[in-house]
Amino acid sequence: MIPALVSLVGAGPGDPELITLRGARRLAEAELVLYDALVDPRLLELAPRAQRFPVGKRAGRPSIRQETIHALMIRAARRGRRVVRLKAGDPFVLGRGGEEALALLAAGVPCEVVPGLSSALAAPALAGIPLTHRGLASSFLVLSGHDEDAWRPPLTALPPGSATVVVLMGLRARAGIGAALLRQGWAPSTPAAILLATGTPAARCWRGCLSDLAGAAAPIESGGLAGVIVVGAVVGVAEALAEREEPWKRHSHTARSAARG
Amino acid sequence: MIPALVSLVGAGPGDPELITLRGARRLAEAELVLYDALVDPRLLELAPRAQRFPVGKRAGRPSIRQETIHALMIRAARRGRRVVRLKAGDPFVLGRGGEEALALLAAGVPCEVVPGLSSALAAPALAGIPLTHRGLASSFLVLSGHDEDAWRPPLTALPPGSATVVVLMGLRARAGIGAALLRQGWAPSTPAAILLATGTPAARCWRGCLSDLAGAAAPIESGGLAGVIVVGAVVGVAEALAEREEPWKRHSHTARSAARG
Repeated sequence: MIPALVSLVGAGPGDPELITLRGARRLAEAELVLYDALVDPRLLELAPRAQRFPVGKRAGRPSIRQETIHALMIRAARRGRRVVRLKAGDPFVLGRGGEEALALLAAGVPCEVVPGLSSALAAPALAGIPLTHRGLASSFLVLSGHDEDAWRPPLTALPPGSATVVVLMGLRARAGIGAALLRQGWAPSTPAAILLATGTPAARCWRGCLSDLAGAAAPIESGGLAGVIVVGAVVGVAEALAEREEPWKRHSHTARSAARG
Repeated sequence: MIPALVSLVGAGPGDPELITLRGARRLAEAELVLYDALVDPRLLELAPRAQRFPVGKRAGRPSIRQETIHALMIRAARRGRRVVRLKAGDPFVLGRGGEEALALLAAGVPCEVVPGLSSALAAPALAGIPLTHRGLASSFLVLSGHDEDAWRPPLTALPPGSATVVVLMGLRARAGIGAALLRQGWAPSTPAAILLATGTPAARCWRGCLSDLAGAAAPIESGGLAGVIVVGAVVGVAEALAEREEPWKRHSHTARSAARG
């Protein structure tokens, strides 16, 4: 018999094939799956034995309290059930996975983390943007755009061009982020991209430059989708790739090309 | 017939179960696998049909030139072979994946990126360290310790404690990195960790504080293993987890506990 265990599993950026082998195995073994709203429904098919329960925030519905999620996991594990807490991206990157691990262990419930692809790295990769590239950048800063008090200190300190900037949950803050970088001395022509719903059939990509970031409204407002902002010279590599080859073009329906066409 | 394609596949941090489903499928389909030295040999068993060829740097042997790797991939693809370029971690994080993609596309060879778990995120996760944690950090800076001219500008600009710091390939530079942070005003008591060979059977972890980073020699010099440095309050979460539960303890053979014992 497999002992009770709660696995905090990263679902990755959306595409069900981008979960890890271990994540898929934990889903196959699971008796209860608690999943976030952003998790692709196709991933739940990997858990045919499990009761599946959405615990994420949904538009127009009150979200389930974090303490309730903890209580659900603890109760199920104490009854000997195999629980998977399936989280979009990686459980330990802006996913409250640390809080959930601490709550479980405080309750004496064994838990493990199965890392997943964070959209901070995977969304740019799928759009042909390497976060580091020889001669362009060897560092990157990942920020949450959710809380300005948190993103402003590290972002505004960064010497222009010294690291690629990646912003999660930053679509609404993009004007402020763009303005902060320009004020810090970043070149207005620095390449920038906004990646929406990457790894899902609804994936879209805007590419432009830093000075256009605030105005990059058209392709974005329409969906209410999760998005990743990337600023830095490395975005130009995707430009070079997009000009050449089909697989990259799927991710390259840009506002600029639409405007030109 | 599956058309010729070069897949730049991220192998993840070591453990063969931490590759993605798509990465595993590409290996199963592959006719030629060109792999880095840091890739776990167990992963090659996922490619039973393929000719397997190491192209990474090995101690005491001259490394294969990047141009030679490009030529090998291009030649095999032009002969209609399915090629996997298997890279440790993620191909687009300090992996020269961007260069390889550009070289392939310049030669007219179709290619794709299959992202993998970067050890920058996965090694901390496996050691119980969330890179972000409510109230502690919502940003993180990833640096390569390989080139001081590259890591110094972003690192020394960072306001103390405003982001978690993650350094790849930084074991040799750890004294300089620690000194730079202290000079910038980071508290000497800031928690720090060095994670070695995470995701492999040889995994080890040192935890201490920033002021001890330079002197954290004993557990490190012995292996010549790849390592990840993490500095920030979030490292304290691992401390809390390690005190409580077995799964985390596997990754927690610290120099401090050895000294105490």
